[in-house]
Amino acid sequence: MKEFKLGGGNANPETFPYEEIARVAAEAIREVGGDFASYPGELGHEGLRRLMAQRESTREGIEVSPDQIVLTNGSMQAVTLMAEALMEKPGDIILLDELCYMGTIDMYKKVGAKLVGIPVDEDGMRVDLLEEKLEALHQRGTPPSFIYTITTYQNPTGAVMSLPRRHQLIDVARRYNCIVVEDNCYGDVHFEGEKQPALYALDNSPNHIYLGSLSKILGPGLRLGYFFARPPMLQRLLGRRGDGGNSLLAASIVAAYFKDEMWNHIERANRALKEKRDALLASLQEHLGDICSWSHPVGGLFLWVNLPHDIDMTRLAELANAAGVRYVPGCEFHVDGTEIPNLRLAFGHPPIADIREAIPLLAGCIRAASAHSTAATSEAAG
Amino acid sequence: MKEFKLGGGNANPETFPYEEIARVAAEAIREVGGDFASYPGELGHEGLRRLMAQRESTREGIEVSPDQIVLTNGSMQAVTLMAEALMEKPGDIILLDELCYMGTIDMYKKVGAKLVGIPVDEDGMRVDLLEEKLEALHQRGTPPSFIYTITTYQNPTGAVMSLPRRHQLIDVARRYNCIVVEDNCYGDVHFEGEKQPALYALDNSPNHIYLGSLSKILGPGLRLGYFFARPPMLQRLLGRRGDGGNSLLAASIVAAYFKDEMWNHIERANRALKEKRDALLASLQEHLGDICSWSHPVGGLFLWVNLPHDIDMTRLAELANAAGVRYVPGCEFHVDGTEIPNLRLAFGHPPIADIREAIPLLAGCIRAASAHSTAATSEAAG
Repeated sequence: MKEFKLGGGNANPETFPYEEIARVAAEAIREVGGDFASYPGELGHEGLRRLMAQRESTREGIEVSPDQIVLTNGSMQAVTLMAEALMEKPGDIILLDELCYMGTIDMYKKVGAKLVGIPVDEDGMRVDLLEEKLEALHQRGTPPSFIYTITTYQNPTGAVMSLPRRHQLIDVARRYNCIVVEDNCYGDVHFEGEKQPALYALDNSPNHIYLGSLSKILGPGLRLGYFFARPPMLQRLLGRRGDGGNSLLAASIVAAYFKDEMWNHIERANRALKEKRDALLASLQEHLGDICSWSHPVGGLFLWVNLPHDIDMTRLAELANAAGVRYVPGCEFHVDGTEIPNLRLAFGHPPIADIREAIPLLAGCIRAASAHSTAATSEAAG
Repeated sequence: MKEFKLGGGNANPETFPYEEIARVAAEAIREVGGDFASYPGELGHEGLRRLMAQRESTREGIEVSPDQIVLTNGSMQAVTLMAEALMEKPGDIILLDELCYMGTIDMYKKVGAKLVGIPVDEDGMRVDLLEEKLEALHQRGTPPSFIYTITTYQNPTGAVMSLPRRHQLIDVARRYNCIVVEDNCYGDVHFEGEKQPALYALDNSPNHIYLGSLSKILGPGLRLGYFFARPPMLQRLLGRRGDGGNSLLAASIVAAYFKDEMWNHIERANRALKEKRDALLASLQEHLGDICSWSHPVGGLFLWVNLPHDIDMTRLAELANAAGVRYVPGCEFHVDGTEIPNLRLAFGHPPIADIREAIPLLAGCIRAASAHSTAATSEAAG
């Protein structure tokens, strides 16, 4: 049976420039040469760090020295490292978007953190509620280890934190002397509209930490991400890293490709992703416009669907599974695992034809699994 | 001033086959193609895992399925993961060789383990003393999380655990139901004499975990290592991994090179390393034969020097630093940081000419820093 892969957050294989990367690989390897016999150092390949510094400067208005950028095994390694380095003991609290990337939720639970979710709206994390929570935690003598937030093209909601909200967050974090981990792993994938500067560009406190990735604009198979921070935070984070540094082989080859092609590639990749997003939006409108609503993401790889409130999520999972349509149910993104009438569709990986074929199937499943169409359910299941 | 790099455990740049790797890279990249846009999976590139399974079978007599091999960001990531996955809480005990790789000691302390060293002799870990310690810990109700040991070409002493000692260790571990992490990261680098089978080959208990590396026979700049274990241990370890898997780019390229050249490369690399070891042994004999003794490693990258007992290690460090001779002092390998009259020389990285030039300089420093040659010290420092 055909599988429609709208579940996992993989990148677009159609624009992965493997032919171009293959063409520059040999030269990149010869340039590193005998240095492969040495450890890559705690920061990693200098050429790629320099390119990432340029990219963050142009894209986000961030001034960062390549000497403060640390290459990681995908940004996920950096996500995990934040908890490992910044928590003092199991049970310490991390504040994060109440709806958040499931990989982050999962790892932070595994390292023993107590997660406290802050509601998210279309402007990102609700900083008014964050402040209330911080105040309560401080009064209880249990301040959080840090705040983790995906500021731009939030996963799963697609929200972009507004500029006033960013300033508010910076102000609250400063007043409570709280570390902010800004995960901007989707920052490259921009389709339209105004861009917001990173928190890191708006405030130079060493309490800000920034996470970036090449998994979205290139692919997670490379395992190339990074973080940066200002001293003394940088040293604190580096001190807990336990893998001996990032592969010079992967980094040098990608640097050789990006040296001339970074911006061209990003433009090409985003154009193709925008077409996929538009195809998904059009299909949803056509097949679910009467009973569902959804986000209109201006960047990132995900679309967040609000299902009918009476949906039976278990039944939907069964039906969609039988139809071969993969998605991730809303509860996986909820910090507390709360069952919510939502699902996330990932549009980066599947071909447009698959998106157009999958949505009518998914729409049938949704109609069949929502209670006020019981008749339809019986028929569909029959 | 010229620097003689006998400190860090880097590999041999002279035999790093970057030209050959450059030649196969493009084809390897094209073969992965659009799959770079997806996550590599929790185990990593299948081709490299298959080669590592073959290698371990031929070299160590280990039967392991590629489906139980997990590629890691250097074996150091696996070393760290062991503590992260197997400790239940900070303060839990890890038993390890009393003289042990400083990177392991450092990370295990950072993750909050209490380290208890077991003395090492020329046959490896003293299993009789291990048993005493295990008995005492069990009686106190604080059994260790695991035993960590470098079984072959131990770092820093160069010891190879004898076969009877291996069987003894397996027996003791079984009786105390204790997990054994066998770090065989130097296993490839063999010069002469009989090889001993891995613990993993001698016992099929799921309490055995095996760590391997490509950092010694190729280079740590690649960040390619691995571990394997049998279910349910495998799943327990995978569950704590927090970086989204190993780079397909690095692994696919190295697999393409190793497919036809693995054994030829290992033979070439070991021949060159043996020449370096022999040059180091000859230089030591010539310049320090009267006042020092040292290990005669039959594999690995390190030589362990026993200095005169009255050596002033601080003075030696000053003098050697001034002479540009890098080494690692013994205390860094001691689990408790105890000051000991030893140093480790790494012979893999420096050219033979540097080894021959460095040892007379180092010998001068050692003579000057040992108390029964105070007159010489004054002259040398004058």
